[in-house]
Order: sequence, then C-alpha cells, then structure tokens
Amino acid sequence: MRAEVLAVGTELLLGQIVDTNSTYIGQQLARAGIDCHFQTKVGDNLERIVLALRTALSRSDAVVVCGGLGPTQDDITREAIAAVMNVPLERDEAVLEEIRQLFAARGREMAANNARQADVPVGARVIEQRGGTAPGLVCPVGRKVVYALPGVPYEMREMLERAILPDLRARAGVSSVIASRTIRTWGLSESRLAELLDPRIEALGQGGEGVPTIAFLASGIEGIKVRLTVKAPDSEAAEAALCREEAAIRLLLGKTVFGTDEETMEFAVGALLRQRSLHLAVAESLTGGLVASRIVAVPGASDWFVGGLVSYATAVKTALLSVPEGPVVSAEAAAAMAQAVARLLGAEVGLATTGVAGPTRQDGREPGTVFVGMLLPGREATAVELQLPGDRERVRQMSVISALNALRLELLSR
Amino acid sequence: MRAEVLAVGTELLLGQIVDTNSTYIGQQLARAGIDCHFQTKVGDNLERIVLALRTALSRSDAVVVCGGLGPTQDDITREAIAAVMNVPLERDEAVLEEIRQLFAARGREMAANNARQADVPVGARVIEQRGGTAPGLVCPVGRKVVYALPGVPYEMREMLERAILPDLRARAGVSSVIASRTIRTWGLSESRLAELLDPRIEALGQGGEGVPTIAFLASGIEGIKVRLTVKAPDSEAAEAALCREEAAIRLLLGKTVFGTDEETMEFAVGALLRQRSLHLAVAESLTGGLVASRIVAVPGASDWFVGGLVSYATAVKTALLSVPEGPVVSAEAAAAMAQAVARLLGAEVGLATTGVAGPTRQDGREPGTVFVGMLLPGREATAVELQLPGDRERVRQMSVISALNALRLELLSR
Repeated sequence: MRAEVLAVGTELLLGQIVDTNSTYIGQQLARAGIDCHFQTKVGDNLERIVLALRTALSRSDAVVVCGGLGPTQDDITREAIAAVMNVPLERDEAVLEEIRQLFAARGREMAANNARQADVPVGARVIEQRGGTAPGLVCPVGRKVVYALPGVPYEMREMLERAILPDLRARAGVSSVIASRTIRTWGLSESRLAELLDPRIEALGQGGEGVPTIAFLASGIEGIKVRLTVKAPDSEAAEAALCREEAAIRLLLGKTVFGTDEETMEFAVGALLRQRSLHLAVAESLTGGLVASRIVAVPGASDWFVGGLVSYATAVKTALLSVPEGPVVSAEAAAAMAQAVARLLGAEVGLATTGVAGPTRQDGREPGTVFVGMLLPGREATAVELQLPGDRERVRQMSVISALNALRLELLSR
Repeated sequence: MRAEVLAVGTELLLGQIVDTNSTYIGQQLARAGIDCHFQTKVGDNLERIVLALRTALSRSDAVVVCGGLGPTQDDITREAIAAVMNVPLERDEAVLEEIRQLFAARGREMAANNARQADVPVGARVIEQRGGTAPGLVCPVGRKVVYALPGVPYEMREMLERAILPDLRARAGVSSVIASRTIRTWGLSESRLAELLDPRIEALGQGGEGVPTIAFLASGIEGIKVRLTVKAPDSEAAEAALCREEAAIRLLLGKTVFGTDEETMEFAVGALLRQRSLHLAVAESLTGGLVASRIVAVPGASDWFVGGLVSYATAVKTALLSVPEGPVVSAEAAAAMAQAVARLLGAEVGLATTGVAGPTRQDGREPGTVFVGMLLPGREATAVELQLPGDRERVRQMSVISALNALRLELLSR
C-alpha cells in the first residue's frame, strides 16, 4: 500500500506559504505504517491538478489531496477529482443544509458561493466536516482511491486522523503498529546528547521488531527532542518497549529531560508547583507576555497561576514593580521584579524576565543578555544571567523557555 | 519556459523536516518570471529519483533538483541525473582537489566518501561551490536541463542566485517580471469577500501582461488575504498595476482591509495610536498575555505600548482591576478592566479581554463568548461581545486579533 500527497494551491508554488500540510501528512502516514514515495505541489489549475492526480495514481494506490475545497472560484479540487473519476459533480443536499446551519449558528447568511462546497463527485463518499465548512471526500478510482481534505491545517489534521488514516490502514491490512515517543530535553547540544546516549544507540543497533530506534530532532525553542520509534506486533508490546527505553535514557540524561511527547516546559513547571501547592505570578519585560500566554495554554493552569504583569515601559517597572533606579537590564532589577509581582498579585512564587532582545545594546549590555529573576518561599529573590543567540524574535522566544527551565531547576533543587 | 522543483530526501517525506527549500526556490522563480507548475518531493531512492526526473522533464523545460549531493551512500542525485542523461559519472580532478583543499583549510583530512562529491555526469557543467563541499551541476538533457543544488539552505540559496537563475532567465529570454501584493482583511468570510470583489474579478478576467489576478488565502487567525499577482515588462509597470488594483479593492472593502503584505493587525493598531499620540495598556484574562506578546513584536512598539496585566485569577481582577463583584465574563467586567488597566499603568487607551475559552461553560456563558473592553480618551469605557468558533486554543487566538480589530475600528471611528 503506497500513498502520495498532493498539495493544491498556487500560493504554495509561489512560495507565499510553506507547505507544512504535506509534512504533517507524511509524518502521520509513516506512523500508520503506510509508505509514501512522492509528494507533489500543484497550482489552482484544473488541467494540471488532473495531470498531477493521474501521475500520482499511476505510481501509488492512494492519493491524499489537500487544499482547493474552499468556496471561491479558484477552489477546483472537486472538479479535478470528478474529471479523474470520469463522473459529474452532484450537489449534496444534506451537506448543503449543514453548511447553511453552520452559517446560521454564527448569525450569518450563507453566501451563494458556499453552496459549491456541497458539490460531490458521483460515487464519492463525504467525510463530515467539523469546525470548518468544507467536507472531505473519499473518491474511489478503480481499485485505487483519492482522499480530499481541506487546506486549513486544523481542519485537515482532524479529518486525516478521524477518517483518512483508519481507512488507509484498513485498505492496507496493516496489522503491526509503529509507535513513537518523544523525550524532551533542554540545555544540552545535540552532539553532547548523542555522546551521553551513545551506550543506548550502540545497544539498540539498527532496531528491528520490538527494538526501538533513536533519533534526534532539533526543535528550536522547544529544545532537542529524542525520538524513540518502535515497530511491534501490537500496541501493548510497542508501549512496553518504549517505556523500557525511556527509563534507560532518563537515567543517562537526568534533569535535562523535562517531559515526554506533548509535555511542554510550562507543563513541567506547573506539575512541580501543583505538587508543592504553590502559586506563580510572572513579571515580563523582554518577553512581553509570552511566558504568561504559554502558561495559560496548559490545561488546569488556574490551579497554580494567578497572572502576570507586562512591564514594557520603564515607568511601569519603577512604579508598579519597585525596580530601583538604575539599569533595568540587571540581576538586581530581575530579582526585584520577581519579588514585587509575587507580592502585587498574591503569589508565593515570582518569575521575571528582563534583557536585551536587540538589535542594539541597552544599558551597556549586548543583545542576547537576559536576566531571569526568581522568588521562592523562604528565600531571598535571586537572578540568573543568560546569553542567548539569534535575532530579536529568537532571543525573546528562547528567553521564555530558559526562564521556565530556570524555575523548574530551582523547584527541583528544593 | 517552465521549471519544476524536485526536493530529494527521505526525511522530507517522513515529515522530519519541512521542505522550505522548495518554497524559497518557488519564490525566486516567480520573481525571475519563470513559471513553476509543479514541485515534487522524493526519497533517497535511485529508481524513484529517476522516475521523478523523467516525469518532471516530460512536463517542463527545466528541473531544479535540491538535496542528495552529500558524501554519504544515500546521496545519489548525481547517479540519478547521469541515468536520465544516459551517461556515466566521471570523477572531476579539479573539483576533487578543491574539496581536498577545503578540508585541509579546516585542518581535517578528507574522508574517502567525500571524493564522491567530485563525480560529475559526462557532459554536465560544474557550478563551483562556495561555503560547502558539494558543487552544483548544470546537466543538459536534450534541449532541456536539470540543475542540481545542495540541500543545505544557505548553500542552495547562494548557488541558485549566482548560477541557476541567471542561466534560466537567459535560456527563457525572459524580460518580464512577476510581482505580487497581499491585501489583509479581517471580519468577512472568504465567500463574502469574493462577492464584494466580484466586479474586479470579472473586470480582470484571466489576467495577462500587466493585468493582475486575484486569489484568496484563508490564513486562520491572520485573517483572509487577498493576493494580487501581475506579470509585467518591468518592476515599475508591475508596481503601478498592483497599486491601481489595490486602490480599487480598498474602495470595495473599506475598513475590512487592515494592511498589506507584512503589516499585521497589531502594526495597524500601533500606527493609529502613534498618529494620535496615544498610549495603550492591555488587561488580559482569556488571552493570558497573547495580546501583549504580539504587540511587543512590532518594531517601535515602545513608542505607544506601556504594558499589560494578565489577570488570570479572579482575585487579581477584583483587587487590581476593580472588577465589580459578579460574573467576570461580562461586558461590565471587560469595560472595568480596560478602564482600570489604563489608569494603573498610566495610559490613555485601555484594551481588555475576558471570555470563555472552553471546553466548559463559565458564568453561564457558552465557550467562544468573548467580551472586549475598550477605554478611549474622552469617552466612557465600552465593551463589545463576540462569538468565536473553535477549540480552546483557537478561541484564544481569535480573541487576540478580534480584540485588536475592535480597537482599530474604534480608533478609526474617531
């Protein structure tokens, strides 16, 4: 069973947006154990979409098309698939009614154009939409199949997982499972991690049934991920192999590991605060609300997060955060901010960021100089100094996770 | 003259890295006035690279291949091109010597594998490498041509600009340029925009020399973009055509347009505040710092943004923001927050968000119910109510741009 991906949209060819949909679909196909040998991008042109579909069907058993299901004149994926199936389009009244109701629920009237989204090639099956207006399609072409998905990433992902992957696996008769787990680290370089894990990489060799493989993924501000992947007869065997390997790796890496899979740094900090029944307030200069916004995305953050202050203007720092006169990029300022925000917002723990995002020097400090202030119960407020690489946006993003990591290590050391 | 892009690498198909090289090459081809109708990704497999090359050459005049020129066994782009040209590979002694010297200059010995990088299909021309070890290749196939570029992005870009684009333009005899402009909108559905712009779409027809085409890009929380693309004899003519069309579209869409190209909603808000010499403070409940963090990413935001308060705990809302007793998801609470944060932080303008991100109801309100509070000089604080679709994260993200847009419209109405 081989599947290809076809991403539709002139904007993809012109490089106006990066085609991350194909990347995601490629990942999911690999996880589902479906081979994918080609991925193609094509513009909003009927003849060329038809040609791309025929080329893909000549090489593979299934084609996952994404994009071109919108309501406008340049959304012609439906027409192209109908041409390849050699059938007409027919308006599906049930789908039309759903779209109408969706608009009604938002208090809007459906535009005439949206009716096109209810057009279905005769013989195709509709994948009910959830959250968007475009339904997906499962279109048989002889013994092969074309799936159509909307190009809006979150709609595409939801539909891929709910309807496409199960259908593909059933067609493929895939029985063995591929499972993976990501171990998330912060603070060491990829080459240093590779050195530390060398004994495990040696021991695992080339992998094989039930034996995980190890790969490194540099993920920028999310740290370096160590990905374990294993093929096994069933989910239980796969899980057991992943658990064993994770334990072995955690022994080698220690506190460098802050979580697995979807566990973010802010999730790790929250878990530690919750265990200790502590509440956090943050004061942000350099990071301007990024720390707070990542924290509130953690489910249940209201149990341990009270809020924060973004002190962008110096006057706000001095008036509200009792930062002493003098340079605002300093260890003293960071510590004072952490202490003051905790008091102001009524929390036991304070975390603060101040620094130079760049591109120019400030307070006599180089771009990338960042101070993280921390207040923990029963201690004086302290600060750590960091030197972060990169441009303005990168320094800011790196500051967020570095600050959270500094707090994590402080909490662990108690 | 039509060119295609072929990106080589199994890691691209597996989704381990995003193929940004093709995106970049697509941009550059468009700028150079070279049509690009297809882009393909293929893995490190000789047979399939050969198939992908033949498919591309059957549709286009030139193929830009990137990746697979490295020194390891899975770097086989050279072999695949030689197969398509139907010629053997020959080791180029001059290239080999250069690679050797490069290693010597770095104080290392050349590994035996690196000698493979000096293999050149007979009849191909070498593009001298600068900064990497892999030279590029210009490979004639009949009257058509295959270019090979390394996959390392900065090496690829340098070689593309230095050697490939000039060669392509010369072959094409291209003198015209393609330029585009994006008009950014918020508040109308894609289909409603299409209806409003129907007169322009009709008038422009299929485009043509000097006549722009119109396309829509749904960009989630960034709103819907209207993209104009035009082919013209030179940059000046292209710019003039884009300016004329932008003016016509702005007339039809009015305040729905908040910017062009890289101008974000927060940029638009900042420009209005700056014009009016006003300063902004934000109070965020639902959005938890996202509004502030987007604002501080705007260059020069310190001229008009003083800071913000993230009031996640209800106690923070009542103690610091004077929110009256009662439901915190209400128009009254939002207005009170906007007024209080402006006073607390010393700004003339206040903006506040409170709402239900979901998944459960709160204060008797459905998920997606959001109140945006605003204080402007010389007026009572007010609030608008929004109903936003989607999950928790999406509601929060949509709230950010909706809140900024509400403030933009208020500022415009003065």
